[in-house]
Amino acid sequence: MGTIFLYEIAGTAMLLLLGVGVVANAILTKTKGNGGGWLLINFGWGLGVFAGVFVAAASGAHLNPAVTVGLLVSGAEEYAPGIAVNAGTTLAYFAAQLIGAFLGAALAWLAYRDHYAAETDQGAILGTFATGPEIRNPVWNMVTEAIGTFVLVLVVLMFGNTPSGLGPLAVALLVVGIGASLGGPTGYAINPARDLGPRLFHAVAPIAGKGGSDWGYAWVPIVGPLLGAVLAGLASMALV
Amino acid sequence: MGTIFLYEIAGTAMLLLLGVGVVANAILTKTKGNGGGWLLINFGWGLGVFAGVFVAAASGAHLNPAVTVGLLVSGAEEYAPGIAVNAGTTLAYFAAQLIGAFLGAALAWLAYRDHYAAETDQGAILGTFATGPEIRNPVWNMVTEAIGTFVLVLVVLMFGNTPSGLGPLAVALLVVGIGASLGGPTGYAINPARDLGPRLFHAVAPIAGKGGSDWGYAWVPIVGPLLGAVLAGLASMALV
Amino acid sequence: MGTIFLYEIAGTAMLLLLGVGVVANAILTKTKGNGGGWLLINFGWGLGVFAGVFVAAASGAHLNPAVTVGLLVSGAEEYAPGIAVNAGTTLAYFAAQLIGAFLGAALAWLAYRDHYAAETDQGAILGTFATGPEIRNPVWNMVTEAIGTFVLVLVVLMFGNTPSGLGPLAVALLVVGIGASLGGPTGYAINPARDLGPRLFHAVAPIAGKGGSDWGYAWVPIVGPLLGAVLAGLASMALV
Amino acid sequence: MGTIFLYEIAGTAMLLLLGVGVVANAILTKTKGNGGGWLLINFGWGLGVFAGVFVAAASGAHLNPAVTVGLLVSGAEEYAPGIAVNAGTTLAYFAAQLIGAFLGAALAWLAYRDHYAAETDQGAILGTFATGPEIRNPVWNMVTEAIGTFVLVLVVLMFGNTPSGLGPLAVALLVVGIGASLGGPTGYAINPARDLGPRLFHAVAPIAGKGGSDWGYAWVPIVGPLLGAVLAGLASMALV
Repeated sequence: MGTIFLYEIAGTAMLLLLGVGVVANAILTKTKGNGGGWLLINFGWGLGVFAGVFVAAASGAHLNPAVTVGLLVSGAEEYAPGIAVNAGTTLAYFAAQLIGAFLGAALAWLAYRDHYAAETDQGAILGTFATGPEIRNPVWNMVTEAIGTFVLVLVVLMFGNTPSGLGPLAVALLVVGIGASLGGPTGYAINPARDLGPRLFHAVAPIAGKGGSDWGYAWVPIVGPLLGAVLAGLASMALV
Repeated sequence: MGTIFLYEIAGTAMLLLLGVGVVANAILTKTKGNGGGWLLINFGWGLGVFAGVFVAAASGAHLNPAVTVGLLVSGAEEYAPGIAVNAGTTLAYFAAQLIGAFLGAALAWLAYRDHYAAETDQGAILGTFATGPEIRNPVWNMVTEAIGTFVLVLVVLMFGNTPSGLGPLAVALLVVGIGASLGGPTGYAINPARDLGPRLFHAVAPIAGKGGSDWGYAWVPIVGPLLGAVLAGLASMALV
Repeated sequence: MGTIFLYEIAGTAMLLLLGVGVVANAILTKTKGNGGGWLLINFGWGLGVFAGVFVAAASGAHLNPAVTVGLLVSGAEEYAPGIAVNAGTTLAYFAAQLIGAFLGAALAWLAYRDHYAAETDQGAILGTFATGPEIRNPVWNMVTEAIGTFVLVLVVLMFGNTPSGLGPLAVALLVVGIGASLGGPTGYAINPARDLGPRLFHAVAPIAGKGGSDWGYAWVPIVGPLLGAVLAGLASMALV
Repeated sequence: MGTIFLYEIAGTAMLLLLGVGVVANAILTKTKGNGGGWLLINFGWGLGVFAGVFVAAASGAHLNPAVTVGLLVSGAEEYAPGIAVNAGTTLAYFAAQLIGAFLGAALAWLAYRDHYAAETDQGAILGTFATGPEIRNPVWNMVTEAIGTFVLVLVVLMFGNTPSGLGPLAVALLVVGIGASLGGPTGYAINPARDLGPRLFHAVAPIAGKGGSDWGYAWVPIVGPLLGAVLAGLASMALV
């Protein structure tokens, strides 16, 4: 339990620090990366996963409830060496990932504090923390999130079948690719903690004029990724 | 046979889901990646191959009739461990790749459904699915496709001679490079299934005002890549 | 001692040659990369680390006083195979890194000599050598630098726990990611030598109309990174 | 001798096909990558090296007279396993590299034939084949080329000291980095064959209205890289 909490919190915080950070850099006012474009954002998130995986290797570096669910559904015997799959460990992963995501968002806000203070566009402020759709249509937005997460979890579950020396780079590049290809409609949460943790931070953060946290949309990047993860776990049983 | 169909369909679908997806993200209206540029598209396709190779490792991850033809011409004894080279397996690869490409395009359309519905440019809609030339001149367009595919298949056939720990990243980067360097005139099909499968999907997809599927050009990204693959298979016999 | 000086000077010079070079390419007048954007700058610095690590492998390729401090605080027994951790070697690393950074900046100036001569924007000239904040607020700028360096040093200290064949690419990609995600407010020195060495060169370089070297800010990219490195060294003791 | 000619011609042709191709894509009229930017060009050349190295592994994949000269000066005993260092093999490498570069440029022209025909900017046509300075000052342009090539050859000579599983990716990324950081003034030939071969092709190519081949500059990207290579070979003796 201690291992799960220590490493999943640290690793998910690392992921969100770099992930929220790159969006802040790309869209907040007066930053050096302002207007840096979609590929910059994709690399920032992908390399956030990269850094997070190195930090959280001891807990298997799930960093994402969808990965935990995918392993569960696929019939894995362990979440990481020495960590059994059961209801208690599953919930511990979820809780640690959510706490880590909240903390990572807070650290990113500290790093960009004056740029948040100078920002007058409420959508930009929320957009650095939480995902949101370009065309709002919750059921189809959920489908998009489910498809993106299906790709993430299925390929992660199949990594072991192809030897390589890529280590954490494999999942980092996979996340770059999913962002480039499937992030267009909803901003690719593909991870319930990645969206909910920073959205909670947005709700409590001391940012003047920050506007609302769009809680009406918050279920989409939770339900969509979990649905995609279940389908990926089932698909992996046919393929592995 | 079952192995070929299961894995080549799954892997080629993964490739097309991410490949059609990145073009949709870059050119359809109201997406987050709109106007993201050529390098974004190159990375999307390259990482689509990356994800597809992990999924289809059991069938050798051809994902492309040109790769299958290149192996055939080069005198390979097996298409993958345990899969003999003969007329039946060759046709099975072709069929599975085409089915997978069609399914991947369908999944990408689901992920971007509302953006397809909002798109008023028929050329953009078709352009997410099928390749098309910037300067229409079928014979020279075919030459361009043959050269790009020659590079792809020849280098893939030579991978085994240079040890590395890159695994699926080697072919992914090769596809990024071919797209960056040789994709300018025709959009680099370099894979008959990659073009024909999504073009068939475009022809039947329920997208209002989608326009025609440009069947007059459809032979170019089939014949050009197959020609390049034959030449690469022959060249590999001189080099390997 | 000789090993430290030879390799840390050579490696840090390589890092700064490529790092100052990419900023010069992106922002000086009449270059081929002018306006190339933030991701270009991120890759230039990341690959500068990549090249520098190959050159300085014999001294452990710290290339950065923050890395040396992180190793010291983490309780490492050696800075590199055969190089003990003590006050003398620590100061030798610092001195060599500063000398190397100065020399690398000088080489980059030689490579871009006529573009420096043609540049009329004093801020651009200084910006190629030294970091500077977009919103000047020294304490918070220091926080941003501390957070970025914390990520760098913590992940570097944890590399050994996750086997991969990435070699120098791991730290290169980490630097790309930190730049993309946390470089927006201050330009990510995350390395006291990276800022001070080129700033010293700027102060003495024979560039007409170059303007001042902004010494009032110079303490921020020294203190912030050292603070982050100490925190990372402490954190690594909890995680490793 | 046969090994040198077969593989160096094939590998250097691959490099130039992708290298000339990416510049054609980025700057010729009506291409899909038009205006794609400097990072696209950097990745195209880097991945051209990547593909070329796989093709030319049997001859050591120099692909560049500067690499051959660097090995010679560094006191290497073999240019590749089984290929001795002597005057005959050295000249064979040079000749094969020049022939390969010419052939690769010709292939790239075939791939972009109609875009060359449609191009009205003579500088763009020449710019796809040969390098040229943004600020013409031959001695300093030569210095820039010497510095860039020094980085390339020195790091290549030190690859063997740092184990990694990167294989051909290491030199590919190094070339991306040199282009990003040091390509701004002259377009980074860093390889005499890379410039002279395509310039010769430009001189004879049947492109209407192509303009002159700027032979007055042709010595710079030959002398600068050879000078940098000699310095790198000497430096490597101090470091290896």
